[in-house]
Amino acid sequence: MQIILLSGGSGKRLWPLSNGTRSKQFLRVLKSPSGEYESMVQRVMRQIGEAGLEAEVTIATSETQREAITNQLGGGVAVVTEPERRDTFPAIALSAGWLALEKGCSRDEVVVVMPCDPYTEVRYFETVGRMVEAVEADAAELVLMGVEPTAPSTKFGYVVPQSGEQGLSVQRVQRFTEKPSRERAEELLREGAFWNGGVFAFRLGYMVDIIERYIHAADFAELRSRYGEFPKISFDYEVAEKAHSVAVVPYAGAWKDLGTWNSLAEELPENCMGNGYIDAKCENTHVVNELELPILCVGVKDVIVAASPDGILVCDKSASEGMKSEVEKFDGRPMYEERRWGTYRVLGQTVYPDGHHSLTKLLHLNAGCSISYQTHARREEVWTFVDGEGLLALEGKVTRVGRGDVAHIRRGEHHAVKALTDLEIIEVQSGDELVEEDIKRYPFEFPERV
Amino acid sequence: MQIILLSGGSGKRLWPLSNGTRSKQFLRVLKSPSGEYESMVQRVMRQIGEAGLEAEVTIATSETQREAITNQLGGGVAVVTEPERRDTFPAIALSAGWLALEKGCSRDEVVVVMPCDPYTEVRYFETVGRMVEAVEADAAELVLMGVEPTAPSTKFGYVVPQSGEQGLSVQRVQRFTEKPSRERAEELLREGAFWNGGVFAFRLGYMVDIIERYIHAADFAELRSRYGEFPKISFDYEVAEKAHSVAVVPYAGAWKDLGTWNSLAEELPENCMGNGYIDAKCENTHVVNELELPILCVGVKDVIVAASPDGILVCDKSASEGMKSEVEKFDGRPMYEERRWGTYRVLGQTVYPDGHHSLTKLLHLNAGCSISYQTHARREEVWTFVDGEGLLALEGKVTRVGRGDVAHIRRGEHHAVKALTDLEIIEVQSGDELVEEDIKRYPFEFPERV
Repeated sequence: MQIILLSGGSGKRLWPLSNGTRSKQFLRVLKSPSGEYESMVQRVMRQIGEAGLEAEVTIATSETQREAITNQLGGGVAVVTEPERRDTFPAIALSAGWLALEKGCSRDEVVVVMPCDPYTEVRYFETVGRMVEAVEADAAELVLMGVEPTAPSTKFGYVVPQSGEQGLSVQRVQRFTEKPSRERAEELLREGAFWNGGVFAFRLGYMVDIIERYIHAADFAELRSRYGEFPKISFDYEVAEKAHSVAVVPYAGAWKDLGTWNSLAEELPENCMGNGYIDAKCENTHVVNELELPILCVGVKDVIVAASPDGILVCDKSASEGMKSEVEKFDGRPMYEERRWGTYRVLGQTVYPDGHHSLTKLLHLNAGCSISYQTHARREEVWTFVDGEGLLALEGKVTRVGRGDVAHIRRGEHHAVKALTDLEIIEVQSGDELVEEDIKRYPFEFPERV
Repeated sequence: MQIILLSGGSGKRLWPLSNGTRSKQFLRVLKSPSGEYESMVQRVMRQIGEAGLEAEVTIATSETQREAITNQLGGGVAVVTEPERRDTFPAIALSAGWLALEKGCSRDEVVVVMPCDPYTEVRYFETVGRMVEAVEADAAELVLMGVEPTAPSTKFGYVVPQSGEQGLSVQRVQRFTEKPSRERAEELLREGAFWNGGVFAFRLGYMVDIIERYIHAADFAELRSRYGEFPKISFDYEVAEKAHSVAVVPYAGAWKDLGTWNSLAEELPENCMGNGYIDAKCENTHVVNELELPILCVGVKDVIVAASPDGILVCDKSASEGMKSEVEKFDGRPMYEERRWGTYRVLGQTVYPDGHHSLTKLLHLNAGCSISYQTHARREEVWTFVDGEGLLALEGKVTRVGRGDVAHIRRGEHHAVKALTDLEIIEVQSGDELVEEDIKRYPFEFPERV
């Protein structure tokens, strides 16, 4: 059995913790049963394991999220990235194509597609197991999860089962409906309709046939290179609405989208996460602080304060839904990123009147990881090694480095670094333009010993 | 005529903008008529000049404030610092002693003592002028300013004039009273009493005689070295209450202590100072942001958000008076300081599990200023020069430095730097203890040319 986890999102609604490269599913603000902080995607991966689904997981995402995924989930999980952003049908088709053409899965294998960030409980994954059984029993071409509504919500699409099937563990679907009006939603509840949970199960061959309506590819590289030939259309429209037979497996349990500060705050394990203090006069106030500097809240009510190297949000909880448009005013460079090799954080930056830029970063390399051999055309860098042990390659020469060492890397000079233990470096960049894109990479292997 | 400006305060109530070395009077959050940002002490100095008082100003303060005062007011103003903190009588006596013993002012010269941070208007300084005239006319030994009450406040001491003198421009004082109850304050208003504004005028000889009750010093150095012999007592108790004749000159006009965020917010020139955005759903909300990272306020009401390298405050305006005790929880090292030579800001700091510390600072040296020749016993420093031109002295060798230069200063190595133009340096400190006190200074003169 294969699971395709959809990992998308631009991360504006949980600003400043989320940004273009760190969507909400990567925020480590939840707590696992063992007391460790974990992100939404880490939580879903843990739950898949705990449910005993014996699934192999492929993450369908964009290139900007690849390094965060590797950093959070390790190298063991497969990642398929879209060459360009289209819609859910092309993204799912690409990952399904990867399973068929690259991984070599059989047409009979069951595939489950699901979002990577629903906040649910173990029964949710048990329901996924029943969906797989339904596909294996050929209950329908397409089986989806129906979330039992707790209110006549106007925010979800609905799935209406055929009359007379209510109460069955697998119900045939009569039709789908768009987000309804309040009155229509109340009628749908009386009809026994479910919320469409965005979880789909099918045999891989079913999806391969749909892909071939658009692209006949000899291998995955060809499929990916012709990705633009897929129509920009959602999976619901292209697949679910057109299927000859669809069944729904009901799920009754916790099912939340922690997509706004208001909804996320309800699930935070503590009122104050990070360095801060909420005084006794405050009510219903949450602080999520990724900065070192402390946050003090005095006497405020119903407020979320969130701080990261990207900025500081002070938001009334009732207003958190509408903040996406305001955040677009603050589109600067990312100030914190998770990378394949670790993380970096921007400590300070200055643009001088003559156009010269200076940027100071703290780099944290995880033990065993390395930054690739590279040159910059428009900047120089000074690296001060402040903790750990590593190997520095500079213009072909490899030396052992640690606390107290300094490297001055001039424009055009080839450099790389490998962390032998966790390694921290203060990097001061200077140049006329300081962008992540000013980088040219070269093949290089660090020697085993120096 | 001499003015002694009292500059004290520990700066907890306007945290995080104020701290141990930056009391509220140094915050550049007001606007001068010419549109420049100015601090409270800069505002008072400007107003003294504009009032045409032709006064020479001496600042009575503590050593921790000396560098901020020089940086804000320039080198032209005299600064007298207490060797230890005692009370207002010793502090005023020390500055008066400096005027008599060091500056050589005559016993007849009129001295005005006043706080350095009242928020007032030009009439206030005209009143100071009338107080000087009253002393010169020998109206009393001691003349003080009486602020006309606008309400029966219980927060101020009161000055009660002799009956029958109401309406005179100089009134003889019958008695002083402590902060009264509400009922007593209402009676005092009916008696024509004034708030004690903490502004006093007298002839220097009058104060010299009081000093000599405690210390007979041959010169100022002796007076300062024997400072501990002064009693710990306020000027009001030691001088005003004991004077044989006291007069009061009334002042009717703006007179505010911008000592809490709530009172300061009313005088801020803009709702949002610094990088930030207050959305349209917010009401009565102020942002004062000294950080580079943006602050976004969404939908909050009656809130002050203040951010500096020391921390972030989110405070309901009605609660700002009580925050002093909360702030004491956050007593860390100062993250921003004004120094004689410019400013520094801490960009980041880390303590590693083995006790090793790393601290990154941005230093800004004003053109012409220099950091003294010094060594550190417990840390090394890496300086990356990111803007401007300067001279670097390292172990006796002087070189010209500018953008792109890097200096690695090891433990015990002598170093100094002089800014030829405004100079910016990223400093990375590493060591087992990183405190401002780990510094040994040596005499050194930079050569005119290198």
